[in-house]
Amino acid sequence: MSTSSQSYPMSGGDDQHSYIHNSSYQKAVIDGVEEKARQYILEKNNLLNLMKPDLSIFTIANYGCSIGPNTFHAVQSITDTVKLKHMKERQEISLVPLEFQVCFNDQANNDFNTLFRTQPPSFEQEYFSVGVPGSFYGRVLPRNSIHIGHTSYTTHWLSKVPEHVCDKKSPAWNKNYIHCNNLIEEVTEAYKVQFRKDMSVFLKARAEELVPEGLMIALGELFICFIFIFLYLQGVTTLEKIELFSMPMYFPQYSELKRAIEQNGSFTIEMMETTSHPLEALQLTNDFITLMFGAFLSTMIEKHFGDFVVDELFDQLAKKLLKHPIDFEKCKKNMVYYIILKRK
Amino acid sequence: MSTSSQSYPMSGGDDQHSYIHNSSYQKAVIDGVEEKARQYILEKNNLLNLMKPDLSIFTIANYGCSIGPNTFHAVQSITDTVKLKHMKERQEISLVPLEFQVCFNDQANNDFNTLFRTQPPSFEQEYFSVGVPGSFYGRVLPRNSIHIGHTSYTTHWLSKVPEHVCDKKSPAWNKNYIHCNNLIEEVTEAYKVQFRKDMSVFLKARAEELVPEGLMIALGELFICFIFIFLYLQGVTTLEKIELFSMPMYFPQYSELKRAIEQNGSFTIEMMETTSHPLEALQLTNDFITLMFGAFLSTMIEKHFGDFVVDELFDQLAKKLLKHPIDFEKCKKNMVYYIILKRK
Repeated sequence: MSTSSQSYPMSGGDDQHSYIHNSSYQKAVIDGVEEKARQYILEKNNLLNLMKPDLSIFTIANYGCSIGPNTFHAVQSITDTVKLKHMKERQEISLVPLEFQVCFNDQANNDFNTLFRTQPPSFEQEYFSVGVPGSFYGRVLPRNSIHIGHTSYTTHWLSKVPEHVCDKKSPAWNKNYIHCNNLIEEVTEAYKVQFRKDMSVFLKARAEELVPEGLMIALGELFICFIFIFLYLQGVTTLEKIELFSMPMYFPQYSELKRAIEQNGSFTIEMMETTSHPLEALQLTNDFITLMFGAFLSTMIEKHFGDFVVDELFDQLAKKLLKHPIDFEKCKKNMVYYIILKRK
Repeated sequence: MSTSSQSYPMSGGDDQHSYIHNSSYQKAVIDGVEEKARQYILEKNNLLNLMKPDLSIFTIANYGCSIGPNTFHAVQSITDTVKLKHMKERQEISLVPLEFQVCFNDQANNDFNTLFRTQPPSFEQEYFSVGVPGSFYGRVLPRNSIHIGHTSYTTHWLSKVPEHVCDKKSPAWNKNYIHCNNLIEEVTEAYKVQFRKDMSVFLKARAEELVPEGLMIALGELFICFIFIFLYLQGVTTLEKIELFSMPMYFPQYSELKRAIEQNGSFTIEMMETTSHPLEALQLTNDFITLMFGAFLSTMIEKHFGDFVVDELFDQLAKKLLKHPIDFEKCKKNMVYYIILKRK
């Protein structure tokens, strides 16, 4: 019952260019904030109140799971925490052992075969795993069926390119750029409108899928420094192709996110924080940057510009990075947001 | 949480050799018997009693779904019937609309990507679809979570080759044969023992997954005439390789199936019938037979004998069929079983 939307999955498979092997940037953030969710669930939340004494299934959904270790890691952290809480608080009424079901959701063209094949062997003792195909900009699971929803680095992908930014006759035409910028007001506004629409649909769908008092945990970036790489496109494709391309990607401001949640009205905000990206903990190299961009952008670039462009683009990127390394110090402030919502 | 088992999925993808395009033999049976399930659900069963007034999710599992139109067809037939029953009997208490979730289960190396990609567009209006990776010889879904389970042409695949049939020192060594036969008593017994074990695990797992009064619908073959094709293997591979190969495939007798269900003890048998295969309705040609065998056996043959053998085997088969067509009249009696079980 999912709604269709434009779909650019992360690079599938598990070779050196796949998202599996190039998602450590995201992993650094997840590690940094999951301890907060853990503490919240263990200490401040009465999550188990929503579990009737006869309830034996605890259901977790990972929206926009993609493939790779991050998705399993995030899920494992939640199941571990809920188990610990359950053991501490509820051991006396456990007539039947608690069972977990984890719903791995992503677009139908996500590489679910690889997702299933690469599950850590330990999951078999931990939870029942299901793959849920469909855009999270729409319903993908039954009503009142999820206890904890989780999404990480996903909602910056819009459901589609904002309508007017590729329209040569519109004042919102994003002529020489391929992403949202603050240089043309109408372009920025077109992206903001699309983000508001998408976030509204996302929150409405999750509100229906979560049980009352269920939690929705979300993290992502508010501000991003690496989109400059697309300026390099000009060397490897025609100007006309660039004029008709814009990325369906928008990194919101803190206030925009907050407003979307308040306008939806189905959730209380239990936690909403920003934090810097712990980039310094990573071994940043030119190869690392090139591979990471390749893993999450090449499907989209390929679709518009053709396969051959991707290799050339990333070759050029690698060379430029060698000459002009990125100053990551500039990207470290207030980039990551982290939200825990509770379904009213 | 599934148990591991030997795994030979149907041929993936959607080219001319795939199971998608070569499963019409199975389809003929499904068409023939689904009307019986329909009538049973509509007229004789009080299925809706298990739906509390506030229940809004109806969950169906298709165990061993593979890929292709049959799996969607079977599921659609069940959702249509339950909807009709619900509309007729329960319209007055439908405070929230009934939603369906369909769990498509198969081994983790089933081609779920193709399954999701080939779902008929109409499913989006009908049910929420999830893929459930794992052997059905073990738990794959949470306790008490399924209202109707369905399995079609699956349980003749054993979880593994019976232990002693490839052991040169055992009296149950299946020396010159590669499937269960009635010529060596110990071989037949080894297959029977494995079937009993597997069916016991299958029924125990389904009994846990189904809600009380939930239904399990199963169909398959009791007797099979086409295994003779493996005699052709001798032309294309070494004798030693044949000596060490036996298929993990067993078609039970009616009495064996019945005993397994009775010994499990968790189900009442609502219907247990045998019927002939409506083969005469199909356009049987040499190409049809060759492609069908290829679609569901080539993964297994490839694994043991190597890729090149498959093409040669089926080439030879095609030639032999041209000279000696199969007499399908001989295969028409009491081949198909059809069971409806109700969880106590």
